[in-house]
Amino acid sequence: MPHAPLRWMMTGKGEPLTPAEFNPFVAKADEVVVEIAGCGVCHTDLGYYYDGVRTNHALPLTLGHEISGRVVDTGSDAFYWADKTVIVPAVIPCGTCDVCRRGKPTICPNQKMPGNDIHGGFATHIVVPAHGLCAVDEARLQHSGIDLADLSVIADAVTTPYQAVIQAGVQKGDLVVVNGVGGVGGYAAQIARALGGTVVAVDVNQDKLDAIAANGAELALNARDMSPRDLKPAIKDFAKKRGLRQTEWIIFECSGSRAGQETAFSLINHGATLCVVGFTMDKVEVRLSNLMAYHARAIGNWGCAPEYYPAALDLVLDGHVKVASFVEKHPLSDINQVFEAAHHGALKRRAVLVPN
Amino acid sequence: MPHAPLRWMMTGKGEPLTPAEFNPFVAKADEVVVEIAGCGVCHTDLGYYYDGVRTNHALPLTLGHEISGRVVDTGSDAFYWADKTVIVPAVIPCGTCDVCRRGKPTICPNQKMPGNDIHGGFATHIVVPAHGLCAVDEARLQHSGIDLADLSVIADAVTTPYQAVIQAGVQKGDLVVVNGVGGVGGYAAQIARALGGTVVAVDVNQDKLDAIAANGAELALNARDMSPRDLKPAIKDFAKKRGLRQTEWIIFECSGSRAGQETAFSLINHGATLCVVGFTMDKVEVRLSNLMAYHARAIGNWGCAPEYYPAALDLVLDGHVKVASFVEKHPLSDINQVFEAAHHGALKRRAVLVPN
Repeated sequence: MPHAPLRWMMTGKGEPLTPAEFNPFVAKADEVVVEIAGCGVCHTDLGYYYDGVRTNHALPLTLGHEISGRVVDTGSDAFYWADKTVIVPAVIPCGTCDVCRRGKPTICPNQKMPGNDIHGGFATHIVVPAHGLCAVDEARLQHSGIDLADLSVIADAVTTPYQAVIQAGVQKGDLVVVNGVGGVGGYAAQIARALGGTVVAVDVNQDKLDAIAANGAELALNARDMSPRDLKPAIKDFAKKRGLRQTEWIIFECSGSRAGQETAFSLINHGATLCVVGFTMDKVEVRLSNLMAYHARAIGNWGCAPEYYPAALDLVLDGHVKVASFVEKHPLSDINQVFEAAHHGALKRRAVLVPN
Repeated sequence: MPHAPLRWMMTGKGEPLTPAEFNPFVAKADEVVVEIAGCGVCHTDLGYYYDGVRTNHALPLTLGHEISGRVVDTGSDAFYWADKTVIVPAVIPCGTCDVCRRGKPTICPNQKMPGNDIHGGFATHIVVPAHGLCAVDEARLQHSGIDLADLSVIADAVTTPYQAVIQAGVQKGDLVVVNGVGGVGGYAAQIARALGGTVVAVDVNQDKLDAIAANGAELALNARDMSPRDLKPAIKDFAKKRGLRQTEWIIFECSGSRAGQETAFSLINHGATLCVVGFTMDKVEVRLSNLMAYHARAIGNWGCAPEYYPAALDLVLDGHVKVASFVEKHPLSDINQVFEAAHHGALKRRAVLVPN
């Protein structure tokens, strides 16, 4: 290794992130040490850093929960992970508690999220539990031509909407609306399409709409150019032309904004499924009774169960979901500038920080 | 028949309901004529009458969609219903369209609701489609000691929460909260308990709380006596004492009020299911993102598929769900006074109008 292991610490809301050397080679029996290839910068990180959303682990803390890399050391029980190329789940359930045993790992009270419960991925190395790791077949990765660092975004930006899409039961013939086609929504659109849905993308950013129109969305509507009231008729019209249903739309709210959630809620029709994927602290004003009147449902989605990671990875390695064209890599040492740029909406793609 | 067939017509919002003679013996091939034993007065009827909620069928219209009675004439294809004792579903799907064939009858676009799409049950007779009718075994009814008129409320007040409870998947060990234990919520509580749930009732009306505490609720909380903030800790405390989960609560919102919906939403915890059963035109202000943060869901429920009626009827005939003590019968000719009393909250029980 050319340099000593390093991680970037958040010491307080908005305080400059600072590098700190540390010794990662302290894996317990069921833990591994991962040398990080890349770590994606997520809206959630910005929420901790700029908005003062509290982390579970006290500050100082290394943020970052979208991690790919290679196992360089293991605890005694995790020996079989040695030298494997892996994706670290953004949320790692304990696997042994009551809810985990009942198949609901996303609500595990003991779950560990890097960059929230434990030190995260804006670092050269990380120590994580071995259970839940997703192995990446290296021959297949090489064949795909995808950079391991780019796969980091699978750990949240891809798998979170993947679970949401599976949970919603998207299948051939479904009309799928994705509201907010940024870092997460862009993957929601691609995954929904890969599973048979016909995708309508809605956003206020034309660049993002253009990008997703070239990667799976069959209709891209700029919500800046139309009133919220015109959106539903426009989608109805599209459904009619395509011979798709005027009922049971599946709507993914990925903008994580008040306006976006209210827009998404307004698109509910008979038998609709609204998937709440994005997060905002803001309350919204909605007619909740529409769920009753339309026999519709709103499903929240938190992270993704590790069991789904291999299938989500398959979609990427098979080329159904593009990641490379939706990310931009930056040296980890530029973390402060990259956070600023992401915070001000100056990045067109999701940033992945690569240790340098 | 002692009198000529008669139905009570709504001619306009708040206008006195007026009786009109008519000839019900006009059943088409797949229709039957039911001589009505009783018809329940529902919040929905009051919404049409007092709040100006529009009916699908133009006025004048006979309201009423909770109907029990006896088949006294049939169309040629429905001959096998002759002389049967029946409950008429509150919502009758067509059974043949695309959504019906895909098992989603509650969003059938051709569904007929008596008292909304067709003339309803505040009458001596009604003509309805034969498909979807729920037969009542007369020997069993007699053995149960329940009056056929009382069974009318099964057609909405019992079956609607029944479907909601089934849809939510209530089972043994679940902590179930029912917010609003009036005409519909009281049955939600009884049904949830019959299926194994431990029920917490929440209401602002002590009489209703007392009634449900005697019929299945193990904790009855008067929301007038406590702040909304204290409600969740009180239920947590109860769960702890009973060894029930602090996650995955199943919450039935049956008050159909803004305050009630906001209260119910505030009770969402990890993995919770919020069932929106009651209806209000009012918007609510909620943090929709909590569905995401808690990996929770909100499910709307519209009516009940006819397939569920026999099982709901079983619960009543077997004594698991009491109806007689939750209804009060009035002569149909008192309809105007009964509407007024129900509208002003002067009735302690659900009113059933009996032709006289």
